[in-house]
Amino acid sequence: MIREMKLALIQMQVLKDKDASAKKAMENVGRLASLGAQMVVLPEMFNCPYDTREFEGYAESEGGPTWQLMSEAARANGIYLVGGSIPEREGKAIYNTCFIFGPDGSQIGKYRKIHMFDVDIKNGQYFKESEALQAGEDVAVVDTAFGKIGIAICYDVRFPELARKMVKQGAEMLIYPAAFNMTTGPVHWELIFRARAVDNQVYVIGCAPARDEEATYVSYGHSIVVSPWGDVVGSLNEEEGYLMGIIDFDEIKRVRAQLPLLRHLRDDVYK
Amino acid sequence: MIREMKLALIQMQVLKDKDASAKKAMENVGRLASLGAQMVVLPEMFNCPYDTREFEGYAESEGGPTWQLMSEAARANGIYLVGGSIPEREGKAIYNTCFIFGPDGSQIGKYRKIHMFDVDIKNGQYFKESEALQAGEDVAVVDTAFGKIGIAICYDVRFPELARKMVKQGAEMLIYPAAFNMTTGPVHWELIFRARAVDNQVYVIGCAPARDEEATYVSYGHSIVVSPWGDVVGSLNEEEGYLMGIIDFDEIKRVRAQLPLLRHLRDDVYK
Repeated sequence: MIREMKLALIQMQVLKDKDASAKKAMENVGRLASLGAQMVVLPEMFNCPYDTREFEGYAESEGGPTWQLMSEAARANGIYLVGGSIPEREGKAIYNTCFIFGPDGSQIGKYRKIHMFDVDIKNGQYFKESEALQAGEDVAVVDTAFGKIGIAICYDVRFPELARKMVKQGAEMLIYPAAFNMTTGPVHWELIFRARAVDNQVYVIGCAPARDEEATYVSYGHSIVVSPWGDVVGSLNEEEGYLMGIIDFDEIKRVRAQLPLLRHLRDDVYK
Repeated sequence: MIREMKLALIQMQVLKDKDASAKKAMENVGRLASLGAQMVVLPEMFNCPYDTREFEGYAESEGGPTWQLMSEAARANGIYLVGGSIPEREGKAIYNTCFIFGPDGSQIGKYRKIHMFDVDIKNGQYFKESEALQAGEDVAVVDTAFGKIGIAICYDVRFPELARKMVKQGAEMLIYPAAFNMTTGPVHWELIFRARAVDNQVYVIGCAPARDEEATYVSYGHSIVVSPWGDVVGSLNEEEGYLMGIIDFDEIKRVRAQLPLLRHLRDDVYK
């Protein structure tokens, strides 16, 4: 197994025009692949405004136009592509879904957001994702040439149970396409991403849309890469940008040899 | 139920002489009670150096001399006393145990540390708690006039499962007598205490011994009180000192009404 990977995150602003967003995303994927990226991550809802009134109109089925563009971008560039998320339609239901592609363009995994973001913060953010979306039912841990990667989306990161479940299934990196907002972002974003890394001694990644002050839901941005020791190894501000760097999966072994948290779990007591 | 409580933490240096440490602790308890404290928390191993070679010599049975002093301090001052921890002997086994007393001096709870701190950090801290101690088997959530309080010790705070279990049993405040060290303290202490608070939307308390540079295990100190929103509402540096303030348990309801994390748990998926 190859233990080092060049990872790239795209923090881009989402446009009103779905096709323009998707095209812009794939151009960025090509650019980062040409710089050596082996896995590229897109943000949550990268082709659709994060707005419950819009999901239906932007939704596509698995294999739809945006899916096709992602598959082709992965294949043409020979990279892994973690496709942020898009509104996915299946029958009457719409999901917040991440499709994951291998370097041959095939879909190697799919994740539908499990925890619906239904909040109403005093003098802050209101959002009721469950008004427009259906919750997923399955954990997603995908195999890659570099090891297993766990995928979840945004609000999911607040639930230590899900992260632990992915890690127990062998995930060495947890990737969360995610759009925190201007209420919870400044107070909790970095804290929670670092906590999931320190709890599990894995790499934890948050990939956000760039901030658009005109949007109904304003993204906090601040895409982040956290090491298995909990260090922020890279982060952005709120503007469009990339994060690119080497992920050294052997670091996980080193951290766990020193502080063997997972061997110390007391599942007998938690039950 | 009374929803406001005056809580006090004692960050004190542990002496070589067991009785002197215990006496010093109880004098501090009396001082804080006279200032209005309704619950006082002592640090981990407040009557014994944190050293695997010392636990046996300092150990006492339940009901032993230090236990008696704690019970009497609770009763005489009419307060709840969370007795940090002491090495407890039962038969041949020694545990890292917290005894909890009510205002009438009766023992209302007891917790034996569940997760053994066995670490070996490169150029950093080495410790093998399990060489000298037996691990506990039970979660401790105690009833008080203010609501339910969960008790665990130090390294336990790294395990989100235990915190969640206490919270699911109704704990609204988690108290960890704890002695992080000079390797993990600066990088992880505040992060993890804040994470447990934000994960569970409860008050989280860390009560540490003051730093003693001469000790074989040097405590990081930095006793801390974190709110259900994850704010550090009080903290100390490494020196001896107190933290005292009002805990408003209704804050938990307000936070959960806005961001109802516990209602969003997907236990069906985690299994």
